[in-house]
Amino acid sequence: MRRAELLEEIVKRRLLYWPSAEIYGGVGGFYDYGPLGVQLRRNIVEKWRRMFVLPYQDIIIEVETPIVMPEPVFKASGHLDHFTDYLVTCTKCGRKYRADHLVEEELGRRGLKISTEGLSAAELERLIDEHKIVCPNCGGPLGRVESFNLLFKTTIGPYSDSAGYLRPETAQGMFVAFPRLAEYVGRRNPFGVAQIGRVARNEISPRGGLMRLREFTQMEIELFFDPQNPRCPYFAEVENMEVPIVPEELVAKGVTDPVFATAREVVEKGYANEWMAFFMALAARFLRELGVPLERQKFLGKLPHERAHYSAKSYDQMVLTERFGWVEVSGHAYRTDYDLSGHGKYSGREMYLERRLPEPREVEVVRLYPNPTAIREKYGDKIGEVVKALKENEELVLAAFRRGEPQVEVGGYVVTRDMVYIKTERRKTDLEKFIPHVVEPSFGLDRIMYVTLESAVVEEGGRVYLRLPPDVAPVNLCILPIVKRGDYVEIGRSLWRNLAGEGYVAIYEDEGTIGSRYAACDEIGAPLAVTIDEKTPVDGTVTVRDRDSRRQVRVKLRDVAAFVSMVRRGLSFDEVARELNAAPV
Amino acid sequence: MRRAELLEEIVKRRLLYWPSAEIYGGVGGFYDYGPLGVQLRRNIVEKWRRMFVLPYQDIIIEVETPIVMPEPVFKASGHLDHFTDYLVTCTKCGRKYRADHLVEEELGRRGLKISTEGLSAAELERLIDEHKIVCPNCGGPLGRVESFNLLFKTTIGPYSDSAGYLRPETAQGMFVAFPRLAEYVGRRNPFGVAQIGRVARNEISPRGGLMRLREFTQMEIELFFDPQNPRCPYFAEVENMEVPIVPEELVAKGVTDPVFATAREVVEKGYANEWMAFFMALAARFLRELGVPLERQKFLGKLPHERAHYSAKSYDQMVLTERFGWVEVSGHAYRTDYDLSGHGKYSGREMYLERRLPEPREVEVVRLYPNPTAIREKYGDKIGEVVKALKENEELVLAAFRRGEPQVEVGGYVVTRDMVYIKTERRKTDLEKFIPHVVEPSFGLDRIMYVTLESAVVEEGGRVYLRLPPDVAPVNLCILPIVKRGDYVEIGRSLWRNLAGEGYVAIYEDEGTIGSRYAACDEIGAPLAVTIDEKTPVDGTVTVRDRDSRRQVRVKLRDVAAFVSMVRRGLSFDEVARELNAAPV
Repeated sequence: MRRAELLEEIVKRRLLYWPSAEIYGGVGGFYDYGPLGVQLRRNIVEKWRRMFVLPYQDIIIEVETPIVMPEPVFKASGHLDHFTDYLVTCTKCGRKYRADHLVEEELGRRGLKISTEGLSAAELERLIDEHKIVCPNCGGPLGRVESFNLLFKTTIGPYSDSAGYLRPETAQGMFVAFPRLAEYVGRRNPFGVAQIGRVARNEISPRGGLMRLREFTQMEIELFFDPQNPRCPYFAEVENMEVPIVPEELVAKGVTDPVFATAREVVEKGYANEWMAFFMALAARFLRELGVPLERQKFLGKLPHERAHYSAKSYDQMVLTERFGWVEVSGHAYRTDYDLSGHGKYSGREMYLERRLPEPREVEVVRLYPNPTAIREKYGDKIGEVVKALKENEELVLAAFRRGEPQVEVGGYVVTRDMVYIKTERRKTDLEKFIPHVVEPSFGLDRIMYVTLESAVVEEGGRVYLRLPPDVAPVNLCILPIVKRGDYVEIGRSLWRNLAGEGYVAIYEDEGTIGSRYAACDEIGAPLAVTIDEKTPVDGTVTVRDRDSRRQVRVKLRDVAAFVSMVRRGLSFDEVARELNAAPV
Repeated sequence: MRRAELLEEIVKRRLLYWPSAEIYGGVGGFYDYGPLGVQLRRNIVEKWRRMFVLPYQDIIIEVETPIVMPEPVFKASGHLDHFTDYLVTCTKCGRKYRADHLVEEELGRRGLKISTEGLSAAELERLIDEHKIVCPNCGGPLGRVESFNLLFKTTIGPYSDSAGYLRPETAQGMFVAFPRLAEYVGRRNPFGVAQIGRVARNEISPRGGLMRLREFTQMEIELFFDPQNPRCPYFAEVENMEVPIVPEELVAKGVTDPVFATAREVVEKGYANEWMAFFMALAARFLRELGVPLERQKFLGKLPHERAHYSAKSYDQMVLTERFGWVEVSGHAYRTDYDLSGHGKYSGREMYLERRLPEPREVEVVRLYPNPTAIREKYGDKIGEVVKALKENEELVLAAFRRGEPQVEVGGYVVTRDMVYIKTERRKTDLEKFIPHVVEPSFGLDRIMYVTLESAVVEEGGRVYLRLPPDVAPVNLCILPIVKRGDYVEIGRSLWRNLAGEGYVAIYEDEGTIGSRYAACDEIGAPLAVTIDEKTPVDGTVTVRDRDSRRQVRVKLRDVAAFVSMVRRGLSFDEVARELNAAPV
């Protein structure tokens, strides 16, 4: 636990994160992030976008949708029915527990290692009875095991019957917006939608610091593709990348160690389709570049009873931590057409893309036509505007009447059923509609931040520092006059101002010994430290120190920005030093 | 309304934003953002950070705190009592209205222009009676005017008595974390805390598109300073910048036109202190750089009855739009010590910074000492750990007992009152504690995005485009082969891949006439379009076209990235063309 303990001290001392609302005794499952935490998170998000979204921006588009969503969304998505955990209450002291965790822990304490994943309420009750598990707090008897829905509920507007929920995943915002987005991309396939944002889950008993939060940040992609053609056009980029995987068939046999397969093999062996394998390969690379070697990663196949209600196949990307053992940092689910079909059914909207047929054929289409007499009767002169609004919202109106609604509002006009004709027509087309299938990689930023930090801790000859990758390190450089002397201070402050103005995160510090200041920079993972010394006022050069090797080189003041920029972009200290003709110190 | 109408068409056609959950009939006050909207928002946020936070990162630190916060926070902050609007319900049809809006609109329709800001329920009822205002929906009589609290309420955890609320401003997360943050910065002053994030307000009747949302994004700074010394060390940077301002004294006289004063004059005339004037000057520049000239901006002083419950002085930064008239894009409030004192009182925690006295003096300090006998009795051998936990959490423990709690948990140990001694001691010090005052600039991202877009619309000889500043334009460039020819396509796709991989947002398009493709790029404000033509395969050059002037120059393929980067950083098309020795076309 050495690394984890060292990290905990740094987190406290440098205020990376801490429990929220502490002054009011705290509230479980919520964390605040301090300046270094925010910057580290932002850099991880940016790295994710540059790895998963930007290079594929011709296919993957980004959206931002609200956290509060109305009730029908979660009826259709299945969350109101299925997004539950089991709760058990002590009949004596009233304390409440998450039933599966309680059973696992109590049995674990007795040396019985079992997994409760996927067990039913009845099965959990049976285990509680069988093993005579009682309330750990007061020893009282436990009551029945009940379902507890994990959605945070609220009310929208002054009408108390209009329920809203905080989204438990960013995904639903993307599914609900599907008709707009599909139209935007011209109904072509494949196409993906990415979203980065906060989500909330009302966990029964959150614990483990950042591991189980009630509010956290997700980075998700919903990749819509034709189930008849699950090909990823960018697959060649990843096909030789290694993926440590425990396929379902091995999981079923109790195997927990991964096999190392290339992304191509993952597809060929039928472990996953191209899109899943593509994102898994990128995810492995993402964590590797964040400092987690492949040997501490695995993609664990989920058995049918362990999967979320929407998933036909799932892998959890697990990372081995010192503090929490294996933790899930991303989930890779094959959601099929579960969500789009659900929303299609509940909303009456068609959720489709189009594929081209080898030759045209006749299809049935449902069309909407205005009934001028009925419209004029109600809206008189405005008939033109009403007809225009109907044309523009044909699908919306069809959907509303398909749902059986008596009327629908478009463009400010209330349209009743008698104002339109709905006709089924046949026409020839070489386009065929289909409901796309979905592959979803879903990343938890907070856990990824934790594993990045834990992996970065280095203890080396009494020295402790964070070997954070320079592109995610929260501070780009520290500027340290060797002593606090007027001219050094002036040069240092002016360099700081320039770099801060250009958008770098830089720390200027002139108090304390140079050794203690280097240590302070190292422990937050600043890749570089610039020192202003006796030569600086004379020849305009400073030394630049490498965090990891502690080696120093001397460069011109005006080259410092370039140095920092190149290191952040991924060049090694030595490469940059060579590039800038830096002199060894 | 020409600009606003043109914009509305672009917003629809290019899917910048649209009402959320549309497939379920929508829910008022929630909007989704499409790919171009997300990118524009991200760029505006980044510009804000680069203007308000990064250059002053030695003073202003950034945090990220949860959206859901527990009840005591909003008791202390006054939001549970004061964050209300007036609601009036039709006694016949049951429809609900925001009372002040209803009165203003109904009277407005009758040619009576009045302001209801700050009116009480009784005053609103009197206006309804006096003017015989009835339900606009059914003509029925209206009921009593009631208070409606705008906080979204939810429940945290399985205990239904643990209320939580969605934060209506990011500010409270910063106030509640104040003790941690103050310690982090060594209790020095001034210091500021910035936060960017989503907030939610349960508006009674949201309308006006992005103008009144129930969920939106704020960018806020809480600047903590010594009321005895409200100096801003960076004031010299802004002192000559012009601020169009309507000070309270003029507002009281019914004046609505601003006077133009420098930031220095704003302070000298007593309109605001240095910190307020500093942020107002930066805010004016921010909007100016987003395309809103000073002539369409003003800082409107708020009279006492118009201010939020926490504010002793407020200016609203208003921008004149075509569509909505004057709209508030940022608020500048002098919150005094209202929030910190409130949280101090409710939590029992001291919320303070320290100032240095000219000479030391004696002060009283409250100290905590462990009672070894009582601790050993309960925890035996673990006494060392308990004492350590007490030392590390001295203030927390003191606060809990000050609040009258019977026990408090630290480091996993429950500490009761008998386990500690609390002593008041006198000691000599040259530090004096004080509760800092707060100046708060608070920006609404969604409205700022709207005014940026509306200001960017240009109609010029039948041509419509968005003249967005290149640093916020959602797309950096378009890549357009002049015709769809194999070698052009290959060169274009490869250029696109390179730029996309480097993190630029680039559109590649080879369908349609070149004219229509230019128009499509212009209408989303892409500053540059690169064209691949017959010369490209021969000499490796392409043309680069300026969105605004439509002039073209010819550069080497390998210089395109530099061209885009320089334009994004703020250089003009001509400057960059010169810099890269581009040849005119």
